[in-house]
Amino acid sequence: MKFYSFWRSLASFRVRIALNIKNIVPDEIVEVDLLKGVQREAAYKKVNPQMLLPALIDGDGPILFQSVAIMEYLDETHPQPPLLPRDPRGRARVRALALINAADSHPLMVPRVRNFMEHELKLDEAAREKWIKHWIGEGLAAMEGHLSRDKETGKFAHGDAVTMADICVATQVTGAGFFKVDVTPYPTVMRIATSCMELAPFAKAHPLKQPGAPASLSH
Amino acid sequence: MKFYSFWRSLASFRVRIALNIKNIVPDEIVEVDLLKGVQREAAYKKVNPQMLLPALIDGDGPILFQSVAIMEYLDETHPQPPLLPRDPRGRARVRALALINAADSHPLMVPRVRNFMEHELKLDEAAREKWIKHWIGEGLAAMEGHLSRDKETGKFAHGDAVTMADICVATQVTGAGFFKVDVTPYPTVMRIATSCMELAPFAKAHPLKQPGAPASLSH
Repeated sequence: MKFYSFWRSLASFRVRIALNIKNIVPDEIVEVDLLKGVQREAAYKKVNPQMLLPALIDGDGPILFQSVAIMEYLDETHPQPPLLPRDPRGRARVRALALINAADSHPLMVPRVRNFMEHELKLDEAAREKWIKHWIGEGLAAMEGHLSRDKETGKFAHGDAVTMADICVATQVTGAGFFKVDVTPYPTVMRIATSCMELAPFAKAHPLKQPGAPASLSH
Repeated sequence: MKFYSFWRSLASFRVRIALNIKNIVPDEIVEVDLLKGVQREAAYKKVNPQMLLPALIDGDGPILFQSVAIMEYLDETHPQPPLLPRDPRGRARVRALALINAADSHPLMVPRVRNFMEHELKLDEAAREKWIKHWIGEGLAAMEGHLSRDKETGKFAHGDAVTMADICVATQVTGAGFFKVDVTPYPTVMRIATSCMELAPFAKAHPLKQPGAPASLSH
């Protein structure tokens, strides 16, 4: 198994947590430096024509891409411990919670988006920061709205076992930390994210613990 | 079954196609007018705290939300005809192709995003249009890159049977039509989208064929 990732990529972080939960150790980890634009070079475009991280090669192709699709794949090929509950309704809830982060929040602030805002729309840093903080907050608020209301919420996002929803809650909160978003309005989200980050599969997957992360940030 | 949707919503369009493929007729369709901001009113916030469309109630709660999670739920509860292939690798490919639209393209241009750009970032119509066209194009290019390369591509996105990937290819192309994006660089995407839109479950789900769609656009 060959895993294309980058320390700073929150989508790679999601897959790293899933790999850790499943006790899967990739044979090779290829660093694709998003900050230098390596994902847009021909070599990586050949791997993943979408030119985004992460990507995973497991045996012969096709390449696996999109973090949520990769997590579902890992769950289907390595069922224990499960990342989704068994009942369709519970599975739908977990997937929907995950997509608040993976579809409606995180894609709005990845490097390609920030670059487009800076270079094509000529938005200054204050405007870009306002944008990023707003959409991280919207994601956190949506999670809090569902998690604080639903009786299915337990120690974790769906009952007392970790699911794909928790992975996405944790990466949403990590993103909020990167951009110094005020998280006090989201106590349920924060309780769950804190419980997650105490677990080894989450903790050792943290962006700042990966090779390449600047030492100045890793405290 | 109660389906909260809006004619213009491409995420609702995705679920409408899936319902049609599965031959499921909701008992009630509730229109939530995105253009008037009804999704942010208390009544709908109570249904879906994320305040986005679509949402589906099937029996007793919790509410189903997020179009991809809803499609997975419909596929698990109404397996025939399937929206995903059987093998994990094929399922991963279909999900990843779907997420190009549902995670990395469409969420960047929904009404809440356009409103934020207009009112908070003070971007004029030309800048907003440039933004929208760019991300629709990036989505189409990513799809074309994968679909034109992979041997798994057939009459449809994954072999010769319709999957969730085709639903998302079709809604991506419909969005491109709304915003008059040049689609000539994406012949594989267009071939598949055209094949899809010739099928009744896709054709009758089209935004402009829904109640509430302005007659001036429905030609």
